[in-house]
Amino acid sequence: MEGAKIVVAVDESEESMYALSWCLTNLFPHDKHSTLVLLYVKPPPPVYSSFDAAGYVFSSDALAALEKYGSEMVNSVMGRAEAIYKNFSTNIKVEKVIGSGDAKDVICSAVEKIRADTLVMGSHGYGFFKRAILGSVSDHCAKNVKCPVVIVKNPRKK
Amino acid sequence: MEGAKIVVAVDESEESMYALSWCLTNLFPHDKHSTLVLLYVKPPPPVYSSFDAAGYVFSSDALAALEKYGSEMVNSVMGRAEAIYKNFSTNIKVEKVIGSGDAKDVICSAVEKIRADTLVMGSHGYGFFKRAILGSVSDHCAKNVKCPVVIVKNPRKK
Repeated sequence: MEGAKIVVAVDESEESMYALSWCLTNLFPHDKHSTLVLLYVKPPPPVYSSFDAAGYVFSSDALAALEKYGSEMVNSVMGRAEAIYKNFSTNIKVEKVIGSGDAKDVICSAVEKIRADTLVMGSHGYGFFKRAILGSVSDHCAKNVKCPVVIVKNPRKK
Repeated sequence: MEGAKIVVAVDESEESMYALSWCLTNLFPHDKHSTLVLLYVKPPPPVYSSFDAAGYVFSSDALAALEKYGSEMVNSVMGRAEAIYKNFSTNIKVEKVIGSGDAKDVICSAVEKIRADTLVMGSHGYGFFKRAILGSVSDHCAKNVKCPVVIVKNPRKK
């Protein structure tokens, strides 16, 4: 029997890294052969979002800088995630998925496409880019994905 | 080290029983000494809710019948839950907590009081009594409790 696919939505937040730790501690006991899927969603290409949201246009230099920033962010987030799961076990099967667009839609559709068994995410993720103007990403995902959803809070806010 | 306290909010719904099964399968591996806390919230006493919500008064016979119905419901829900966890393992430490009042408030305050490590619940629970008029109970709890919250959907709706 193939193991479960557990998606963790990671982003720039401490909370999402804590969600990953929670997931590894609680959903990856040693006798299971689950696959950890790290899902990171890049913000939509800035050329569109700058027109749509803010109503002004970035110079091409600023655009290039933003795109470079986006790629560096992917590496930074995935690097932090890697340090966390390698600290737990070197035996975990890991897949990395990078999406692009509106985080809440991309996460929901990725979960369906991957046929995930569980989605784990922070409660206030994706605040860094202020992408979640209408309600939080975790709210939306909890309502819309069909598999169980684990919403993890930042323990520092306790 | 004492094990974690995992609260499962159970109610009349199939979904909450499925949430309990998910919890036992995924959060109770054999090497952990967690305590399963079954939390059932009875609706508020009908004499108050009848004045508050519907604006009319039940006869005392109807009140007695409703209260009896409430107690029978506790036994029925706890009985179903018991059958499920005993089917998984006879070694699980189980506590039963019965609350009374507005499900979303009672669940949130019980989770804090018990110092639960995780709350597991169905996504559409407590619909039986239509107690969740303003938003779902799981939405509210996911936003308000400090520990990780697992929201489990009825797999039949897939």
